[in-house]
Amino acid sequence: MANYFSSSFTLGILGGGQLGKMMGYETRKYDIKTHVLDPSDQAPFRIACDYFEQGDLMDFDTVYNFGKKVDVLTFEIESVNVDALEKLEEEGKKVYPSAKTLRNIQDKGVQKNFYKNNSIPTAPFLVFKDKFQLTEAIVRKEVTLPFVWKSCTGGYDGKGVSVIRTEEDMIPLPEVACIAEKLIPFKNELAVIVARNVSGEVKTYPVVEMEFHPEANQVEYVICPARISDNVAAKARAVAEKVSEAFKHVGLLAVELFQTEDNEIIVNEVAPRPHNSGHYSIEASYCNQFEQHIRAILDLPLGNTQNKVGGIMVNLVGAEGHTGEVVYKNIERIMAMDGVTPHIYGKKQTRPFRKMGHVTIVDESIDKAREVAERVKGLIEVVSK
Amino acid sequence: MANYFSSSFTLGILGGGQLGKMMGYETRKYDIKTHVLDPSDQAPFRIACDYFEQGDLMDFDTVYNFGKKVDVLTFEIESVNVDALEKLEEEGKKVYPSAKTLRNIQDKGVQKNFYKNNSIPTAPFLVFKDKFQLTEAIVRKEVTLPFVWKSCTGGYDGKGVSVIRTEEDMIPLPEVACIAEKLIPFKNELAVIVARNVSGEVKTYPVVEMEFHPEANQVEYVICPARISDNVAAKARAVAEKVSEAFKHVGLLAVELFQTEDNEIIVNEVAPRPHNSGHYSIEASYCNQFEQHIRAILDLPLGNTQNKVGGIMVNLVGAEGHTGEVVYKNIERIMAMDGVTPHIYGKKQTRPFRKMGHVTIVDESIDKAREVAERVKGLIEVVSK
Repeated sequence: MANYFSSSFTLGILGGGQLGKMMGYETRKYDIKTHVLDPSDQAPFRIACDYFEQGDLMDFDTVYNFGKKVDVLTFEIESVNVDALEKLEEEGKKVYPSAKTLRNIQDKGVQKNFYKNNSIPTAPFLVFKDKFQLTEAIVRKEVTLPFVWKSCTGGYDGKGVSVIRTEEDMIPLPEVACIAEKLIPFKNELAVIVARNVSGEVKTYPVVEMEFHPEANQVEYVICPARISDNVAAKARAVAEKVSEAFKHVGLLAVELFQTEDNEIIVNEVAPRPHNSGHYSIEASYCNQFEQHIRAILDLPLGNTQNKVGGIMVNLVGAEGHTGEVVYKNIERIMAMDGVTPHIYGKKQTRPFRKMGHVTIVDESIDKAREVAERVKGLIEVVSK
Repeated sequence: MANYFSSSFTLGILGGGQLGKMMGYETRKYDIKTHVLDPSDQAPFRIACDYFEQGDLMDFDTVYNFGKKVDVLTFEIESVNVDALEKLEEEGKKVYPSAKTLRNIQDKGVQKNFYKNNSIPTAPFLVFKDKFQLTEAIVRKEVTLPFVWKSCTGGYDGKGVSVIRTEEDMIPLPEVACIAEKLIPFKNELAVIVARNVSGEVKTYPVVEMEFHPEANQVEYVICPARISDNVAAKARAVAEKVSEAFKHVGLLAVELFQTEDNEIIVNEVAPRPHNSGHYSIEASYCNQFEQHIRAILDLPLGNTQNKVGGIMVNLVGAEGHTGEVVYKNIERIMAMDGVTPHIYGKKQTRPFRKMGHVTIVDESIDKAREVAERVKGLIEVVSK
């Protein structure tokens, strides 16, 4: 095994946002040397890495030259130049997850076809190279309303996704390649993170549940373990493991799932990296998702994915009508509650709905944690000065 | 309350060693701006702080000028210039723990007298201004062998302490101010960390137990919770709280205790900072000691000091006969065990007995954790290339 600890070994990370920053705690814990590339000179991970470079993650030369200088290359965001990763791999550089995995995920059309070809359950869909093609298909009744529109690239945090119920809903859609997906009513949105190291060792985290706000159709709480039957949980883990097996990814694969009205489990989409749905693991799991990702890509043994205690995660997003220097209103009040840990990503400026941090609530009882989470949600506010 | 998070507020930390480094994870988590002063340009905390200054912690001007630039000043090591801290306090700077607390602790003679004056149980002792005075006292039979010799200043990690059984044992002792302490046989060495914030809120961590190697008289395992009776545990916490109350410290106070043959609890010594005996808390506690220290000195509400699971800490010290670039032999083998987390402090060079890191072992069952800890201890080796 290579000597990663307090040595000259260098891990390169594409992206220095909050996921990189949290990965950084683990590289510091193990004293693993890190190089980080990010377009922003304000990148949250900047100060805890050994070397920081400001640059465009989609630019071939920037990514390629950055990758040349490291021993193992990974990423915390999918929007990176895959051609550069491929070139680096051809030249023998270790890139985890691989360019191939990323190619199968980056484009939602390709990703959906991948599920189809690997007989992984997912909502029926059609792929269109532009808006005009889609419109024609609607006219020809190949696509019937209502349906879910997803842009093939560039979508994240709900961006690039919209439910089309009427012809009018089509108007604001951009002229990009897209998919039309059958709108399937679901009971629960679930997620399972699967870790797979270079040697092929696989470990699966418990199923988490996204609890939505009754009115605003927005995830309010990420709850681990999910409050679902053992049957459904087992089925969800099995599907996630099948997806992981199909991708043969190295690192983490966050698999977002729907539990349909008739308790079927279908795949929504995946992310080949640490994921918002795994943030609870920092406080609740024996081995958190960030340490697990590092273990996996360095081919170290995977850590224990079980929970020490139940965990709930609440996102801290910028309040509407607030733009400017951030203030975390009532943070000292939520810190007075047992088992409550805020995470501040380090973005100095807040904007409406900007992801500024998250709060984890842990307790032996998930129901107790859920009560505390509601009090947290009711108190904390991300506002401007 | 001041706005500490993603703001211009600046926390100054004297010392950038492993304690500072681990405190650093918490300042990053909360995005609290940090300035760090350390004599070594290789200080482990160097890369995760916002501003690093290399300088002598015992030099008045260095500490004073460093302190002027921050909003709150704290330390991770006792050997700092207290006059500078006092001057800063006089000028209205917030220094936590206070210069007064440090004055009562830095000199072991003063510390022991402090216990005496506050009727805190501790081993009988005499203070001597030099070796000659001590020798005279022995001749006059005011001090009788065997006894424990401690230098008044500069002692840590067992340095500056030795048991004097014969006249010959006196020969290697340095010519420094010292105390002679009655040698009291004890069953258990225990420790309790007490947190106290600026407003005077107090929380106490569970009692930890130091398990010694049967032959080599060296701590092998720090075990939380200690495997002692509830009676003894309650007594130990009560004594620790009495010590905390007497010092009226702000921040953490690690109270080292002896459980005597007849189950009395007496104070050995204290440290006004995060402590080796609290490292287990990173993985085992709801709120670890480093976060707790930050909360206390910033007058934030204190976190939950209870354990999520049982925790055991094993120090990683350089193996005898190995000096040079460090290699952590078998680290991948211990990482394959559930609940095992190595912490690598980031010192590139190993030396015999140098503290290079620690390993935490957590499990719901402390006895199970103890078994795993023994396997860890048997495998991991800190050697040179």
